[in-house]
This record gives sequence, C-alpha cells and structure tokens, in this order.
Amino acid sequence: MQQKVLIIGGGFAGINTAQKLKNAPVEITLIDRTNHHLFQPLLYQVATAALSSSDIATPLREIFRDQENVRIIMSEALSVDTEKQVVNLTYCDPVSYDYLVLATGAKHSYFGNEAWEKFAPGIKTLEDAQGIREHILRSFELAERSHNRFEIQHYLNFVMIGAGPTGVEMAGAIAEIAYKTMLKDFTQIDVKKSRIYLIEAAPDVLPTFEPALRQRAREDLEKLGVIVLTGHKVVDINDDGVLTDTLFIPTKNAIWCAGNEAGPLLKTLNVPLDRQGRVIVEEDLTAPGFPNIFAIGDAASVKDKKGRIIPGVAPAAIQEGCYVGKIIAGGKRKPFKYFDKGSMATIGLYKAVASAGPLKLTGFLAWLAWCFIHIAYLVTFRGRFLVMAQWLFWLISGKRGSRIITDSLTEDATPHP
Amino acid sequence: MQQKVLIIGGGFAGINTAQKLKNAPVEITLIDRTNHHLFQPLLYQVATAALSSSDIATPLREIFRDQENVRIIMSEALSVDTEKQVVNLTYCDPVSYDYLVLATGAKHSYFGNEAWEKFAPGIKTLEDAQGIREHILRSFELAERSHNRFEIQHYLNFVMIGAGPTGVEMAGAIAEIAYKTMLKDFTQIDVKKSRIYLIEAAPDVLPTFEPALRQRAREDLEKLGVIVLTGHKVVDINDDGVLTDTLFIPTKNAIWCAGNEAGPLLKTLNVPLDRQGRVIVEEDLTAPGFPNIFAIGDAASVKDKKGRIIPGVAPAAIQEGCYVGKIIAGGKRKPFKYFDKGSMATIGLYKAVASAGPLKLTGFLAWLAWCFIHIAYLVTFRGRFLVMAQWLFWLISGKRGSRIITDSLTEDATPHP
Repeated sequence: MQQKVLIIGGGFAGINTAQKLKNAPVEITLIDRTNHHLFQPLLYQVATAALSSSDIATPLREIFRDQENVRIIMSEALSVDTEKQVVNLTYCDPVSYDYLVLATGAKHSYFGNEAWEKFAPGIKTLEDAQGIREHILRSFELAERSHNRFEIQHYLNFVMIGAGPTGVEMAGAIAEIAYKTMLKDFTQIDVKKSRIYLIEAAPDVLPTFEPALRQRAREDLEKLGVIVLTGHKVVDINDDGVLTDTLFIPTKNAIWCAGNEAGPLLKTLNVPLDRQGRVIVEEDLTAPGFPNIFAIGDAASVKDKKGRIIPGVAPAAIQEGCYVGKIIAGGKRKPFKYFDKGSMATIGLYKAVASAGPLKLTGFLAWLAWCFIHIAYLVTFRGRFLVMAQWLFWLISGKRGSRIITDSLTEDATPHP
Repeated sequence: MQQKVLIIGGGFAGINTAQKLKNAPVEITLIDRTNHHLFQPLLYQVATAALSSSDIATPLREIFRDQENVRIIMSEALSVDTEKQVVNLTYCDPVSYDYLVLATGAKHSYFGNEAWEKFAPGIKTLEDAQGIREHILRSFELAERSHNRFEIQHYLNFVMIGAGPTGVEMAGAIAEIAYKTMLKDFTQIDVKKSRIYLIEAAPDVLPTFEPALRQRAREDLEKLGVIVLTGHKVVDINDDGVLTDTLFIPTKNAIWCAGNEAGPLLKTLNVPLDRQGRVIVEEDLTAPGFPNIFAIGDAASVKDKKGRIIPGVAPAAIQEGCYVGKIIAGGKRKPFKYFDKGSMATIGLYKAVASAGPLKLTGFLAWLAWCFIHIAYLVTFRGRFLVMAQWLFWLISGKRGSRIITDSLTEDATPHP
C-alpha cells in the first residue's frame, strides 16, 4: 500500500514539499484553510491598493491540477493525534498519515495584548490585506466628509507599528498614496496633512539588516515624508490612537507589523516549542521523537550552521519544503542546510535596500532587483503576466490600480472592518 | 453665485450628467454610497470569477480628478426635501441644490418575498458579485469534502432565477466553470454531475429579444449543458432549494436574476412612481411639478416615441445623463429622444446573441461584437487595458483568473455569505 503523506498548509513550505513528491509512489493530502496559495511577500501591495487579490493568489487546485497523487481539502486542522497517527479537522473526518508535514505558517502576535488586534490589525491573509486597504481608503473618504478638524486629522494619521520589512514597505506605500496618488482626488481636505508614523522599539528600522542599509532605508523613508520613531515602545492602543512610552499619536489607522507566532495546532504535538510557538526541530526538520513528523517554514525554529535562527522568509520555506519532500521520497537524512539568499525591502516606488552575501544594493538598482526577483518567484504564468502588466501601468502612470472600496459607507466607521 | 447641481448616484447616468457639465459655471456635488463607478454589464463576470473587482470599477475621484467643479461625497441619500431644496444624507450635513439629478439606479426586487434574498441573492453591487463568486467556489469545496451524496448534489446544483440577460449570462458562465474550468480540479467529486438550471416564468429565455435570437440562445445554452425551464414560476425558496409550480430543485446555490426596483429615496419626492418605484418623468426627464429635479437611468420610467418604456440599459442611462447635463448647462428643453443601440447577451465563451436595428448576430460573430463593444465602453484606460489582458489570457488558456476564496472555510456554509 502507498504511504500517506499529510501536509498541513499550502504556503511556500507546503506546496514545495508536495511538488517534490510529484513522481513518488505516495498519496498526498494537502489541507488548507483557504483555497489558494498566497504570495505573501507582496501582500502589502494588496493592502496598499497596488495589486488585486487574484494577482498574488493562485488556487491550490490549479497548482496541483496535473499532479494526480495530491488530494486537496479546504478545512482547518484542529489537532494532531500522534498515537493514532491522524489529524482532526473541522467539519471533516480525521485524516490519517504515515508522514505528517506541518507547514502551518505564522499569524501576528500581540505579545499578550490581544485586545489591540481590533484597533491595529495585522497583515497575514488576503482578508486582512483587503480589510486594511478598504480601511485606509475609507479613512480618506470619512475625512473628506467631516467638518471637525480634530476628527479629520484622526483619519489622516497612519501609524505602522514595527519597522521590519512589512512596516517599512507599508509606511512607504501609504506615504505615496497620501502624497502622490490621492493628491488631486479630494477637494475638501488637504491630503498633504496626512502623517505617516513608523514606530519601532529597536534603535533602528529593519533591525535584521546591515547597519548601512538601515541608515539608507531611514533616509529614504524620511524623504518620502514618513515620520520614523525608533526606540519607541508601544504601551497601549485603542480606538483613539497609539500610546508609546513618550508619545500619544491620535489615529484611526493603526496597522500591526510587529510580531509573529505560530498557530495553535503545533501545541497539540506536545513537543518543545520556542517563544514564538514554533517547533524546535531536529537537524532533519523533524519534531523531536517523531521521525515521521516534519515542521517547516514559519512553523519551525531552525538553526543554520552558525547557530543562528533561520529567518521566516520565502526562500527558507521553499528550501525546507524541497528538503522534506526529498526525504519522504526516500532520500538520505543529511542535516538540512540553509542557503541564505539575502534580504530586501522596498521603500515606496523606485527605491529599495537589498543585500545578498557581500553584495549590497540601495536606491533604484535595489528596487529593480526587487521587482525582478518577485516577478520571477510568482508561481504561475498568470500571476506573473498580470502583475507585470499592472506594475508597468503603475510605473507609467503613477496611479494605483485597485482603489476600490467594495461595500458602501452608510454607517460611521468602526475602528476596523 | 454659481448654481448648485446635486447628483445622486455615480452610475452611467450620474457620471455622464457631471461630465457634460465640465465647462459649465456650476458647483456639482456627486453623492454615492460607494467610492467607485461600476461597469455593471460585466458584473456577472466578477460573480463568475473571470474578472477582478478592480477591473470593472473605477474610483469616482479618479474619473473627476481633473474636473474642478465636482465635489464627491461618499454617503447615502436619505430623503429629498423639495421645499427647502436640500437632500438629507447619512452622517453628513444636508446638501442644498438648485438642480437635483436623481440617478440612483435599481436594486433587485423579490416581488414582496424579501425573505428569499437570504437564499437567492441578486447581483447589483461589487459586494453582491464577490459574495456570489465566493459562494459558488465554496460550494465545490464543500461538495469535495462531503461524504453524503445527497449533500454533494445540493452543492452541485445551481439555479438561476430569471432568464433575462443576467440569468442567461450567469447560467452560461457557471456551466463553463463546472464542465470546463473545474473539470480536473477535484479528485473526490465528479464535477460533471453539476446541474445548472435556468428558470423563467415567461415562455422563452431573453423575453425582450427577437424570437429568432431567443431560440438560438436557448439552443446554445442547452449545448453548454444548461437545463432551461421556461414557463416555470418560482413559488418559494429556502435553504434547501427552489420550489416552482411543478418542481422542487434542491440546491445551495440559488441566484436571483429576476426583478428590479428603484431605491427608496424616490418615494420621498411624493410624485407618481411606476410599479417598479421609478419616477414617471416628463418629456424633459423632470419629475412632474419640479422643473429643477431630474430622474434618469434606472430611477426613471421613460417612454420612447412609440410609447414603449425604454429598457434599463447602459446606453439609455448615458444618453439621459448627457441630455440632462446639456439642459442644466443652459440647453433647450426639447423632449428627450432615445436612440436604441440594440441588445446583446453572451452565452458562455465564444457565443452570444445580438441585435441592433435590423441587424441580428448569433454565435462567434455576436460574441466578438460583444467583446469589442464592452471593451470600448470601459471608462478608463486602465480598466480597458487590464480587462483585455485578462480576456486574452482567458481565451488562450480557457482558465478563469479570479478563482480565489478570500476567507477561510472553517465553518459549515451558511446559505449565503
């Protein structure tokens, strides 16, 4: 009988595992809460109205249409039963496995302050990104129809919490929306009064990047009009604004770009987890004590040969997925080796910072590299083609293509949709 | 002092009125519940996953970016006060007018059976279309993960109620999704068991079209696999299915493509309305007794020179908008004359029926004409460019580009999202 491989999660880690098993004599079941694979590095572009959801998402069934050993179930995994070797799902029968691959990804962490989520949502899913996009666009509309100058400024203040790549990219993109895209669109308010704050507890933006790139990123952000507040710790967030240890910033638009944590499924394994809830895996990416259970991508805490934790980026997830696929297909269990492809972040249109090994790029050249790499990664021909078309349009016109608020504005705004 | 022109509604009628007044010495206020102009004739393509929302919608602020006499407020008009000459809005101060243009459009009518809306939603807004798209895609996912053959068939039955252009176009598109696009996507269910029903009380599909075209449309639909049930009156709809006078069709996917009615704002005018709630306008499209209040598009019941009611199509709304714009700009009040550009409906990919005066087209030629006319109408360069790109892709690959379910499927399906 064929071995049963159960993969939880259709992100980069999960789909690469499945694809490596294309010609293996196994039965693969892939479980995902959604029906699509999401190109997460571009999610902030959906949140800032540059791309549509369908540009950066591909139906999982389309990806595996020609791989006959994959069965896909759209459901949520509730718990792992390591004795019976089954995973329990919502509204579906449990699925049994010979090999289990946990590629469940990360969700945002509020470090124990879950009440903040309502006022400062994070960006992990398409639903998150669309909600934030509509919220941002709606804020300009609400400012336009208000007659109260305090209220107007509440709507025109934008606060990004956390200055990792997501926070930096969001802040740059919102600055461009406010100071360029929207400049001629409103007649009652002056959109130049928009203020974009980027708050970071660490002493610098992009804390994981090289010092020279951090400095350049800060300069580029400030040139765009972003107010960079490093060394500021967020103390509280409510409907009225964001409170740091030294400042109160009134805003209706706080966006959480700070912490990550793994989902609750991993807890049901009863193996040691790190502080972010990730499985501290063995050298072959298995959960301690379970040679047939792998944790990869953002579900795993993996160390490179120098003992540093591998960052939660797409290239790491892809490499880990391929590695596990090869092992299940019968490959040798040599320790996993991470090949660091570097890191990059865009700062508005035309600018970025990037490093790959000894190579460091800034400005327009880094931005070109960023465009090229992201287009090259996009998983299907369609995504690639349409994203290129939109970007081309965007470059030529300076417009943002997806500034549509889906529903109507008949009620006063709730903190977040 | 400049005359104040207040336009309610940013559809074809409303934006054409405003655009005709570009160089007139007036102050225009345009009110819309949403932030966008919607190309409604292609809304069913969003509902059937061929296009993204932002392909067929353009922000109103973008359309009027360079027209300085237009102010836009995103709000809902509650009532007209003809004595004070103001319109009351939700959450905003009332807006006064010298000229009022009511271009409020239509919503779907359930002929007194409002309870049906929950089980058989209509398609008038982007929100509607996205909801129906996600509901259809979700039904296939729920069928795939079910082990109950009755339940599976519930999910795989699709019922369109009303065989006007929307019903015909929806039925054809869903037949293509089920029998072509999805054919290789599912491993547990046989998507060929999908059944697409098109129910119409009149004796034929497309009742307003020429008899020869109706016959051809029915044949084309049946070739695609659609079960056409004309002469069937819907008696009741619930969570379990659709009941006609002679049949019960179990389904989780009923879609309302039948009646239209104008919105409630018109009632506050206290002028005679027709059965669909539209203002029965004078020859110059004014409301009886109010030479400064115009009703146009789907808000008006207008007769042509032969005494027939002008249909609720985009060309009529555009012509009426331009006519009213010219009058307000100081033009003469000659009676409005409708130029009938004909009617058309697509039946799946590559086929359509169309008539324009004595000219009748069917099959591929009609479909090409349909493509050409719809692309030509799209209001902005962007819409046009991207829609063409997607269609081109669609033609080449037979895929549908936007098969993304935004949120997750962790709960059992409610009748409709």
